[in-house]
Amino acid sequence: MLLPNTLRKISFFLQRLPGIGEKTANRLAFYLLRLPKEDLEEFAKNISELKEKTKRCKICQNLSEEEICPICADKNRNHSIVMVVESPLDIIAFENGQIYDGVYHVLHGKIDPLNNIRPEDIFLKELFERVKSDNIKEVIIATNPDMEGEATAMYIRDRIKKINPEIKISRLAYGLPVGASIEYADYMTLKKSIIGREEYK
Amino acid sequence: MLLPNTLRKISFFLQRLPGIGEKTANRLAFYLLRLPKEDLEEFAKNISELKEKTKRCKICQNLSEEEICPICADKNRNHSIVMVVESPLDIIAFENGQIYDGVYHVLHGKIDPLNNIRPEDIFLKELFERVKSDNIKEVIIATNPDMEGEATAMYIRDRIKKINPEIKISRLAYGLPVGASIEYADYMTLKKSIIGREEYK
Repeated sequence: MLLPNTLRKISFFLQRLPGIGEKTANRLAFYLLRLPKEDLEEFAKNISELKEKTKRCKICQNLSEEEICPICADKNRNHSIVMVVESPLDIIAFENGQIYDGVYHVLHGKIDPLNNIRPEDIFLKELFERVKSDNIKEVIIATNPDMEGEATAMYIRDRIKKINPEIKISRLAYGLPVGASIEYADYMTLKKSIIGREEYK
Repeated sequence: MLLPNTLRKISFFLQRLPGIGEKTANRLAFYLLRLPKEDLEEFAKNISELKEKTKRCKICQNLSEEEICPICADKNRNHSIVMVVESPLDIIAFENGQIYDGVYHVLHGKIDPLNNIRPEDIFLKELFERVKSDNIKEVIIATNPDMEGEATAMYIRDRIKKINPEIKISRLAYGLPVGASIEYADYMTLKKSIIGREEYK
């Protein structure tokens, strides 16, 4: 009753998004009211077209407006190395740094039995198909360093070893994040940083 | 290049909202992609209708879909007490508590010379008109307890005193918030809580 109807519906919708509670949603809805009408209309158009316009790349499953995403289509990249990530957002993190010139495979999730996500619910079959047919020399498993990410990594490793024992399988290094302070690091990270220590030349 | 076009435009739009940075905007945009198409379409419709459908109440300037907002239209409320607030969100805070049965006046801002907001840029004229013509006995000034809110409160007090010296003018009490710890309170609040101390009967 207190908020005008349209405003309230917008606020309710925003409250469904992760990390947005009632107060933030109200504040955002009010802010929208101050933006130019044309901008709101363009935003509305993009929102309603979002699902049709956004497909998955046929090769790596990354989100794309084309059949084949720009990364898979790029002939200058090294297509014999595939980095397996959980989400398209992980790709953005790597690409922002321009630190990797191989290609990717997006799982769109991770194996998580507690939340009923089984291996067949994420894009693993497509990964194994690529490993079988493509000319892939190395698979870098870059799932997140949490329990489900680890389980997913182990599952992928075991399956790929069976499919093609020639393929090199690696995992991102664990350790202290750059700029971190040892004082505040958790002991699991410290343990990993000792196990993975490198010769200091 | 990395995000599909529609997704990127949505993310850019969300980054214009207060408190939303690039990473949050990307995460929200991805989340939208998982929602049902019909929900996105309804949200889009509400967004594009937002500005037409949301008007200001002719009496109190609160946002409303009607000419007169539900609070001003409510005959059970006490129309001789007007609480002056900066934003419609402040009204929601009071109404959630059901602690006030008078009516409101929304300024939609506060006098803020540093940001070029002058008395004529907020809905003060409409407040003074109400004070002149309506049968108002008390005005409670409930602007925020910051520098601009204080300046706005003083301005309103001085003007109303000139217009109608019979009207009682009050200001919300300052002091420790309920549940707060004195240890962490700032000294301005503590000072106000001493000045405003009440007899403990």
